[in-house]
Amino acid sequence: MIKPQTLKGFRDFLPIEARKRQFAINTLKKVFESYGFDPLETPTLEYEEILMGKYGEEGDKLMYRFEDNGKRKVALRYDQTVPLARVVAQYGSASSPQALPMPFKRYQIQPVWRAENTQKGRFREFLQCDIDTVGQNSRAADAEILVIAAKSLEKLGFNNFKIRVGDRKLFEGIPPSAITIIDKLKKIGEEKVKIELKEKGLDEKILDKIKNSKPSEDIELILGIAQEMGVSDQVYFDPTLARGLDYYTGMILEIEVDGFDAGSVGGGGRYDNLIGMFGSKQVPAVGLAFGFDRLIEAMDELNLFPENLQTTKVLVTIMSMELAGKSIETADLLRKNNINSELWLNADDKMEKQLKYADKKGIPYVIIIGPEEAKNNKITLKNMEKREEMKNISIEGFIQKIY
Amino acid sequence: MIKPQTLKGFRDFLPIEARKRQFAINTLKKVFESYGFDPLETPTLEYEEILMGKYGEEGDKLMYRFEDNGKRKVALRYDQTVPLARVVAQYGSASSPQALPMPFKRYQIQPVWRAENTQKGRFREFLQCDIDTVGQNSRAADAEILVIAAKSLEKLGFNNFKIRVGDRKLFEGIPPSAITIIDKLKKIGEEKVKIELKEKGLDEKILDKIKNSKPSEDIELILGIAQEMGVSDQVYFDPTLARGLDYYTGMILEIEVDGFDAGSVGGGGRYDNLIGMFGSKQVPAVGLAFGFDRLIEAMDELNLFPENLQTTKVLVTIMSMELAGKSIETADLLRKNNINSELWLNADDKMEKQLKYADKKGIPYVIIIGPEEAKNNKITLKNMEKREEMKNISIEGFIQKIY
Repeated sequence: MIKPQTLKGFRDFLPIEARKRQFAINTLKKVFESYGFDPLETPTLEYEEILMGKYGEEGDKLMYRFEDNGKRKVALRYDQTVPLARVVAQYGSASSPQALPMPFKRYQIQPVWRAENTQKGRFREFLQCDIDTVGQNSRAADAEILVIAAKSLEKLGFNNFKIRVGDRKLFEGIPPSAITIIDKLKKIGEEKVKIELKEKGLDEKILDKIKNSKPSEDIELILGIAQEMGVSDQVYFDPTLARGLDYYTGMILEIEVDGFDAGSVGGGGRYDNLIGMFGSKQVPAVGLAFGFDRLIEAMDELNLFPENLQTTKVLVTIMSMELAGKSIETADLLRKNNINSELWLNADDKMEKQLKYADKKGIPYVIIIGPEEAKNNKITLKNMEKREEMKNISIEGFIQKIY
Repeated sequence: MIKPQTLKGFRDFLPIEARKRQFAINTLKKVFESYGFDPLETPTLEYEEILMGKYGEEGDKLMYRFEDNGKRKVALRYDQTVPLARVVAQYGSASSPQALPMPFKRYQIQPVWRAENTQKGRFREFLQCDIDTVGQNSRAADAEILVIAAKSLEKLGFNNFKIRVGDRKLFEGIPPSAITIIDKLKKIGEEKVKIELKEKGLDEKILDKIKNSKPSEDIELILGIAQEMGVSDQVYFDPTLARGLDYYTGMILEIEVDGFDAGSVGGGGRYDNLIGMFGSKQVPAVGLAFGFDRLIEAMDELNLFPENLQTTKVLVTIMSMELAGKSIETADLLRKNNINSELWLNADDKMEKQLKYADKKGIPYVIIIGPEEAKNNKITLKNMEKREEMKNISIEGFIQKIY
């Protein structure tokens, strides 16, 4: 007998979890679309050469790669930025019949795969949720990304969060090893950063220099426009923000949620030397990626999901074969009034079983139609949340009330 | 230089295509949820042993399989039915904390991968769109699947379609090679079927016997309930319907759209011996799978998509740095009124460039705010579809009109 199990780091999303994810995705999409971002999807598999060498040594190691049946070397999507770069090179030219509009503002919400060591909150298949503005080098494009970051969190229900804005240019000339250490400042504190810098033979004064940096004209302009666009002091300059990835070229940002300590829920910045990698010229870009699983975790911890995301509003039970017609008719009428209604499909099952099912599934209302009800053209209504039963209700009255 | 390209049989979905797909998915989801079906997602990768041997020799050959970094033998999702069987075995028992409600009515809309020879309309990565009712053996469950098939097509905009209903039990005792030939009846005609039967040394009378079969009591019951549930004569009994897959055990169905000749857009049936494969007991099931790419193709051919699925309603242009504030304010006001609005992000760009962009992207309205407009607190409005320009419009008036 084969054991029914999933691979480590891979997850099934059963209905309750799937609905939560759908709720968050829909909320984010709505925000992205309200700012004019277009959807993009790229394939799960790419030629290996498209992805290899783009994510550092670590990336090549963690990438899922194999030879397909036609002996092609292929790899599973590792992030959504390199595929975006490929798409821009492939369809970006104005002469292509499918030519993309430029600037290309796109959102992309698809799974990616990394053979990481699994640990709490880290998976091998996980959803990425990106927005990027490609081909627009203005400071307003940077500012808009900050605004969308803030708006997204607000719409998901987060009241208290911080968007730290840094400047990758401040770190020019500083060795990468020092950047990595300074990046840990918030986590380990000033003293430990200085010790680590010293241990690595680096000048500990780098930290003070960074810490006391004032925002450049560029960053001031970005923050000014962002404020005009509606962000509050939840967005602020923090010169010590460094970000791990080394492809950023200007503004960088990281999002933290108050009361959720498992780390940043998103980040991004300007990267003007990456999108052009498959073409003949550089293409400026600025963007943001949400850590979708962290967002879901934070929403769970802070109780931000609506209490019941079950979309089925009513279970119409069936008492007997003879009364089935009445139940069918009722379920149909409810659906015609845009009330999602499940019909119990077996007249032989006991009412108790049908009620238990509604409970288990989180369906808020149950309708019972027995001989009395059928005769009087009424229903008995059970409110499963309040554990209340009401007899002699008219179906039209019920529709009016819950619609 | 690495050539920017996708693998054969794999596709990018650029915005226009992505929106069409999203439109169809949302429409189908709404229908499925109106009947009480719950969403389910399973991982892209499974242990190879979960999938191998479940789809015949052909399936094993076409499956994408490889060894992961941990030397596990893994395979990419090949369909959504075997993963469903795994899920039912893994969480189906009432003692599991995540125990599924039973019957388990789920929909699943995820890509699958098959290393097929690519040809028109056949891809190596494609979306499957399934509903199944698991753990319910009543004829009403079969009937409901027929109803949902019809309702889905109606909601997608198809006016003329046929749902052929067959009975797998009619083929009991008939050799599989004969079933395969009879299954081609609609395509090649009666004469050729008989010739092929003879060529294979099979009794050509089998065809007449099948053709003249009357529906069994079971099928009559199913069709009767389906009619009570609201289907018309678009659903009818066709004894010659056989379906290729050999795991069906009762009612089978196939959906055809009038005016679309590339083949059936969906099919399914009852399969009572499959879902239990990872557990200790059989679990009855009945379901339906739409061929999503065919549906999209048929909708395209029959012009069923709304003319413009662009969700961005307005481009707010920017005339100069000094007037940017007014444009920002206007875009913000529109968004607050739930009108998706893109703000042009570079004050240095010529108005012509901004207008071309709106055109290319299919944004129906463009707002221009020059010095006159800013002074009078009005806007100039361009209707890009009608190629009309209106001056001296109040923004509130515009919001009232298009909202």
